[in-house]
Amino acid sequence: MNAQTAQIETPEALIESLALTGRAAQRVLARMSDAEKTAALVAAAAALREAGAEILAANARDVVAGEANGLTKALLDRLALDPGRLAGIADAVEQVAHLADPVGQVIDASERPNGLRLSRVRVPIGLIGIIYESRPNVTADAAALCVRAGNAALLRGGSEAVHSNRAIHAALARGLASAGVPEGAVQLVPTQDRAAVGAMLTAAGLIDMIVPRGGKSLVARVQADARVPVLAHLDGICHTYLHSAADPAMAQALALNAKMRRTGICGAMETLLLDAQFPASQAVVGALLDSGCELRGDARARALDPRILPASANDWDTEYLDAILSVAVVDGLEAALAHIARHSSHHTDAIVTGDAAAAERFLNEVDSAIVMVNASTQFADGGEFGLGAEIGIATGRLHARGPVALEGLTTYKWQVRGSGQTRP
Amino acid sequence: MNAQTAQIETPEALIESLALTGRAAQRVLARMSDAEKTAALVAAAAALREAGAEILAANARDVVAGEANGLTKALLDRLALDPGRLAGIADAVEQVAHLADPVGQVIDASERPNGLRLSRVRVPIGLIGIIYESRPNVTADAAALCVRAGNAALLRGGSEAVHSNRAIHAALARGLASAGVPEGAVQLVPTQDRAAVGAMLTAAGLIDMIVPRGGKSLVARVQADARVPVLAHLDGICHTYLHSAADPAMAQALALNAKMRRTGICGAMETLLLDAQFPASQAVVGALLDSGCELRGDARARALDPRILPASANDWDTEYLDAILSVAVVDGLEAALAHIARHSSHHTDAIVTGDAAAAERFLNEVDSAIVMVNASTQFADGGEFGLGAEIGIATGRLHARGPVALEGLTTYKWQVRGSGQTRP
Repeated sequence: MNAQTAQIETPEALIESLALTGRAAQRVLARMSDAEKTAALVAAAAALREAGAEILAANARDVVAGEANGLTKALLDRLALDPGRLAGIADAVEQVAHLADPVGQVIDASERPNGLRLSRVRVPIGLIGIIYESRPNVTADAAALCVRAGNAALLRGGSEAVHSNRAIHAALARGLASAGVPEGAVQLVPTQDRAAVGAMLTAAGLIDMIVPRGGKSLVARVQADARVPVLAHLDGICHTYLHSAADPAMAQALALNAKMRRTGICGAMETLLLDAQFPASQAVVGALLDSGCELRGDARARALDPRILPASANDWDTEYLDAILSVAVVDGLEAALAHIARHSSHHTDAIVTGDAAAAERFLNEVDSAIVMVNASTQFADGGEFGLGAEIGIATGRLHARGPVALEGLTTYKWQVRGSGQTRP
Repeated sequence: MNAQTAQIETPEALIESLALTGRAAQRVLARMSDAEKTAALVAAAAALREAGAEILAANARDVVAGEANGLTKALLDRLALDPGRLAGIADAVEQVAHLADPVGQVIDASERPNGLRLSRVRVPIGLIGIIYESRPNVTADAAALCVRAGNAALLRGGSEAVHSNRAIHAALARGLASAGVPEGAVQLVPTQDRAAVGAMLTAAGLIDMIVPRGGKSLVARVQADARVPVLAHLDGICHTYLHSAADPAMAQALALNAKMRRTGICGAMETLLLDAQFPASQAVVGALLDSGCELRGDARARALDPRILPASANDWDTEYLDAILSVAVVDGLEAALAHIARHSSHHTDAIVTGDAAAAERFLNEVDSAIVMVNASTQFADGGEFGLGAEIGIATGRLHARGPVALEGLTTYKWQVRGSGQTRP
């Protein structure tokens, strides 16, 4: 048994070895210029395009295996690539290449009375662990965002996409290497042993941050077991409150869009709060029902339309991710704020109102990562926020909240420039 | 057994009950204006002054008990209050009262092509747990910083200061309550049972952040056991590198100040790196030895002065917090960077040089919370950085690094103002 075999005997030793390789590569990446990182990601995008045939062949193997293993149609759809989707993956990497580099940005600067000049400068976080499920595009997306901000990435994708992920990773790595990025900057965990995930989650001091990308059960496991900081949201129980002073047409359009545009995304509305004084509640619930949405209401909501089913206590805490919506009638702003404080997952909550004072109170008092006035909760997205991309949406309270893109993949250091000052 | 007795049967239930009370109070605090929070902290400072006799009497009980229990002289000194120290505690609270309120500050704002107006606005973090040792001043300092930024505080001080902490807390609470701050905003854990600390550390979702204040063993325990994010540094193994182009007089003054001004603080230099080409190494080590500092050197350093003891491998990773210094001779900037990368605790590291390119390279490549050029590492302090105070110095990579004051006790939310936009 040679030294290397001994080294990777346990999942912990494997992750330690990968992490040390990643950290060493990250120190090189941290010194690369904006232009060098852009060039490297452009090269990675080109390599993905060149490797199209092999990636699609690898993906076909995963799809065949998935069908044989009885994966659901939804999972197979997430897994399957075609030339159009693959082009989209390469284009996304190229877009990230051209985003502004956060590294080196000066957050603030000051000069002390003794002449010391202080500045806070953005630096990469270090090694980011990405744990994800069946979507092979995450391999490229997440790696590109990490590298753009000077971080190394350690990727652990789902076993159902193992061949796709390996092919995408190989192409990415070739492209990055051709532009001088060290090989360890983007690594794929080479085993599907689930114990490797556990080892990543507890690798404090080796992995600086974990980003889980996938369904609620994955995120819940990561949040429960991680000793490394996690950037994530568990669920998006998003509310839209139609205030008494809401414009009826706007309220109806926003409610329909917030629920029905795409029902499976985390920014989709899951609970509609109707002010008892809002005059057009009947029309809004009617339009939602007519659009094919199942409504589950409290007694007062059910009085608006006989098609509304009774809500159970659980409904107020349920993320349906489907064409189902819970509906409650509330007595004024105070009651709406109380309902949201009790049931929101602190992702995105919105008020529709023409009353500026009510709007400001809602914006200030709702304690969620994103609070909105007169807009669809489906705008909760890094691209829609002008960030160019997103590594995820965070509902934790520290570091970064809401859509997280490159800035959230950096931290800062204090630089102090003196001329010989000693402390009295 | 009534309901309340049942509720506090376990440490976990006690902490949950305190945390829920704190969180409810925090929601009120979060809505208080800048002026209201200032007034509340001014009232708290006044209450501390009014309660001087009771606080000193309580402190005397702790000191007598500490002497009986054989506390070291150093611990007794940290514990003991006198009218001057007490006035200092009240003055510090009043200073925090007048610091600028971070809550409501707009970090950045933008308008999207569709007319959505986005802003990121600072908000309090929530409930902060403070776990500390014998210094009773932390009770007032930490509570004041938390409240100033709209946070509730749950304080758990050392058992040797239990009477002092209760008296200080009672005065603070009276002052804050007189200005409308809810009682739960600042709470002292009412038991010295050590299991309560464990319950705080694992109270994810109830306590938003833990700040340990005390010696290395306390911080190490907190970091090892916490499931709640921790803001802290474990140790300060701070380096000063005297580059070949350092001004000899400046280098000597900085080395003496960085080590000997106060040897027990986390920003004190613990390792001196002498460039082999720096011409005044002998004078610098001579001055350090003459000032009463024990030097432990590698072979080349020992050749500079016979009084230098041999360093063991451990010395390069040791925070002495005493008049002891490890000294190594390095061959150029690259070797200095390598030594620091290997041994620094990422707290504060400094270069002394007249070469601007070497300085910039050091500032960029040393991966520590604070990097300095031509200044004493003892400046690593929130007050010296112009922050007005500090809750601590953080060497973690996320959220806040280096000296942390009010900004690090906030997070942000996204506020989105629309006019009916739906997502296409």
